[in-house]
Amino acid sequence: MPLMDEAIAFAHENRESALNELIELLAIPSVSTLPEHAGDVLRAGEWLAERLRALGMENIDIMPTPGHPVVYADWLHAPGKPTVLVYGHYDVQPADPFDEWDTPPFEPTVRGDNLYARGASDMKGQIFAQIKALEAITKHGDPPVNIKYMLEGEEEVGSPNLGEFVRANKELLQCDFVLNCDSGIQGPELPGIVCGLRGLAYFELEVRGPDHDLHSGFFGGSIRNPLNELCRLIAGMHDAQGHVTLPGFYDRVKTLSEDERVDLAKLPHPDSDHLAMTGSPALWGEAGYTTIERTGARPALDVNGIIGGFTGDGSKTVLPSKAMAKISMRLVPDQRGDDIRACLEAYLQANAPDTVTWEIRELAHGDPAITDRDSEPVRKAIEALKTVWGVEPVFKREGGSIPVVSLLQQELGVDTVMLGFALPTDGIHGPNEKQYIPNFYRGIETYIRYLYSL
Amino acid sequence: MPLMDEAIAFAHENRESALNELIELLAIPSVSTLPEHAGDVLRAGEWLAERLRALGMENIDIMPTPGHPVVYADWLHAPGKPTVLVYGHYDVQPADPFDEWDTPPFEPTVRGDNLYARGASDMKGQIFAQIKALEAITKHGDPPVNIKYMLEGEEEVGSPNLGEFVRANKELLQCDFVLNCDSGIQGPELPGIVCGLRGLAYFELEVRGPDHDLHSGFFGGSIRNPLNELCRLIAGMHDAQGHVTLPGFYDRVKTLSEDERVDLAKLPHPDSDHLAMTGSPALWGEAGYTTIERTGARPALDVNGIIGGFTGDGSKTVLPSKAMAKISMRLVPDQRGDDIRACLEAYLQANAPDTVTWEIRELAHGDPAITDRDSEPVRKAIEALKTVWGVEPVFKREGGSIPVVSLLQQELGVDTVMLGFALPTDGIHGPNEKQYIPNFYRGIETYIRYLYSL
Repeated sequence: MPLMDEAIAFAHENRESALNELIELLAIPSVSTLPEHAGDVLRAGEWLAERLRALGMENIDIMPTPGHPVVYADWLHAPGKPTVLVYGHYDVQPADPFDEWDTPPFEPTVRGDNLYARGASDMKGQIFAQIKALEAITKHGDPPVNIKYMLEGEEEVGSPNLGEFVRANKELLQCDFVLNCDSGIQGPELPGIVCGLRGLAYFELEVRGPDHDLHSGFFGGSIRNPLNELCRLIAGMHDAQGHVTLPGFYDRVKTLSEDERVDLAKLPHPDSDHLAMTGSPALWGEAGYTTIERTGARPALDVNGIIGGFTGDGSKTVLPSKAMAKISMRLVPDQRGDDIRACLEAYLQANAPDTVTWEIRELAHGDPAITDRDSEPVRKAIEALKTVWGVEPVFKREGGSIPVVSLLQQELGVDTVMLGFALPTDGIHGPNEKQYIPNFYRGIETYIRYLYSL
Repeated sequence: MPLMDEAIAFAHENRESALNELIELLAIPSVSTLPEHAGDVLRAGEWLAERLRALGMENIDIMPTPGHPVVYADWLHAPGKPTVLVYGHYDVQPADPFDEWDTPPFEPTVRGDNLYARGASDMKGQIFAQIKALEAITKHGDPPVNIKYMLEGEEEVGSPNLGEFVRANKELLQCDFVLNCDSGIQGPELPGIVCGLRGLAYFELEVRGPDHDLHSGFFGGSIRNPLNELCRLIAGMHDAQGHVTLPGFYDRVKTLSEDERVDLAKLPHPDSDHLAMTGSPALWGEAGYTTIERTGARPALDVNGIIGGFTGDGSKTVLPSKAMAKISMRLVPDQRGDDIRACLEAYLQANAPDTVTWEIRELAHGDPAITDRDSEPVRKAIEALKTVWGVEPVFKREGGSIPVVSLLQQELGVDTVMLGFALPTDGIHGPNEKQYIPNFYRGIETYIRYLYSL
């Protein structure tokens, strides 16, 4: 029996113990945003490091950062073979509201085909499937590729220390490509590859009028109110068709090819499902595009927060001196986070009147990412998925941003293959998060086939 | 020495103790909009009731309302003389932002010619000057008129219970005219009478989109963001010429006569002064009107507060479920507070898209008011001002709203004389509110002369 088949058979025979080990990992409440769980976060990292050590990985290190540590491990004895950097995270979102869980979030519970626990899908189930794949491989021989692990403990708080960590460890992390397991597929029976992620440019805009709060009776009508003006400026950022009006904003946006539009239209995500997930009265968006295109392949501009003046109970008749909005743009290839500040500034320079002053502050930016569907690592991932599921995988562009993808592209010059098995219905970040158990097993097999194919 | 001169001399000799007593009153943080200060509001009312009792006023009563109480007192032993109803309020605006005060708002501080404290000008300084005038009079004889006091504790929250109180106590409050001390003059050396007041209609507008906060990456561009939509709706409430666009808003606005425009143009309030008082970069307003007209004789619409989404430090990528704005309109004769809700609703019905829902809540409304400049009580007030200041007083239309003026006109059928000494530069409702001390003293003398002249 070829080595790959032996590994797959081993994984199949030991699926129950794999599930039980995952349950053990999920019972650790590694909530990275809550200081009282810092010890649990560390414990989850140590637990994974111990598993990697047990399968013969080397140079295992729990590397400190100013926040939670990064778990590193490698095995580099496959000369002539590519080096794969496996990315994952072992921290989880907070579990509140606790009373909306049917069973406690850190007492993993199997009901039917699902395993319910905080982190089951995002992403302890994914990263542990990958480790179990490597375990099955090492039971019968050496790994077929050079492999490195970089598992972080701060993804759910925005990876504040990962950029510095990567810059400080470029040599250690050098690789041919990244296998990012923090990803998903479109449905239980529909595998796929995320081939695009939107970037982000996030700003604070402050508009100032009078240098102190005024009485709206004495001054109302004679002085520009910065709240009214902020609203006018924000309103002008979209036209009536839902296009963003910032000068130059679309200059680098790649036109969707007809082929890609056809592919995106195949995704099983009806508008009615999308709307139901939001609870909004109706869908909205840029004229001329479908919902899938609007969220995955077109940029967007949203106000994330706004504040100014008196917002307590009752009626204070103030004409406030200033107002602030947090405004972010989701970017698509080939927009660049770097360019967007200039678009916003050009808009404000052209549209803000001289009756107020304004200032913008950039809080974050990350480039969009797109994976070449024809690259060898992607083609081989598609092959593995197709073999395991028995159906043709789909390509999807994701609306969210995974900053680590552009970070590693920038710092290490490498592309990422997004290969994970979370489902849109897994309820990540919400109550009753779950992992669909049949796909946890299919995930292990997919990772085995994938590593052997490289 | 005539009684009036004795009273004036007494007030002059005791000015320092008058100032110290005012400081005591200002130290009570009677912020009517904040529930945690309810006890302080009551305390300020009791403090004034005690002063009135000490000067021989009768029927003193702290009369409960569903909110803060009304302090009532009278002295009715001057047969054949008019009965004056003195109106004032003992509550104050909130003092935040606290860090913009040079000295704490409830630790009254004298610097130069000014006394700094929340409520110094609006209006504890004014009402206390009137009480000190009555005290000086009663030191040497009986009051020269019949006098009643109605001091409320809810003016700064829009007097939600005063209408019902007045309707329930019409007989008690019957009078020949109202002396409203909640007023001001044009400059330290320029006395005047306010002969017009703007009305107010104050609303909360809530716009709702999704039924829970969404991830702006997954949903941005496909769901209408209620913050963006709130901004668009607010922006549309003015046209490019600064006119308010609410349907029917100007239907009842009285056209300014050429005569009145000429009079208003005589007010010594150059645009440069107005601008300097605000610290704004430039003036703004409705095309075709002067600054004086814009603030006194034309209606206005302002956002008083706005909030929604994430407003803390940093960058949370949320597409929020709702946003709220406080929006108020200043009204001029013959607009009616009652009508404005319908104008706002008509605008929202015509302009809000079906991708969001909205709701408005009316927090306060009051009609505009205008006073007959040739009535005897007004002419005598002008005389008293002219004697004390030594210059010819001016008439002004005020931009603020004093709903009690139209309320008492409607319910008691009496006119109001607006006689108070606040300055446009006192910074009421803002940080570092102050009372100009020389005019506190001149105010006491003016009230003494006025009461003797009736």
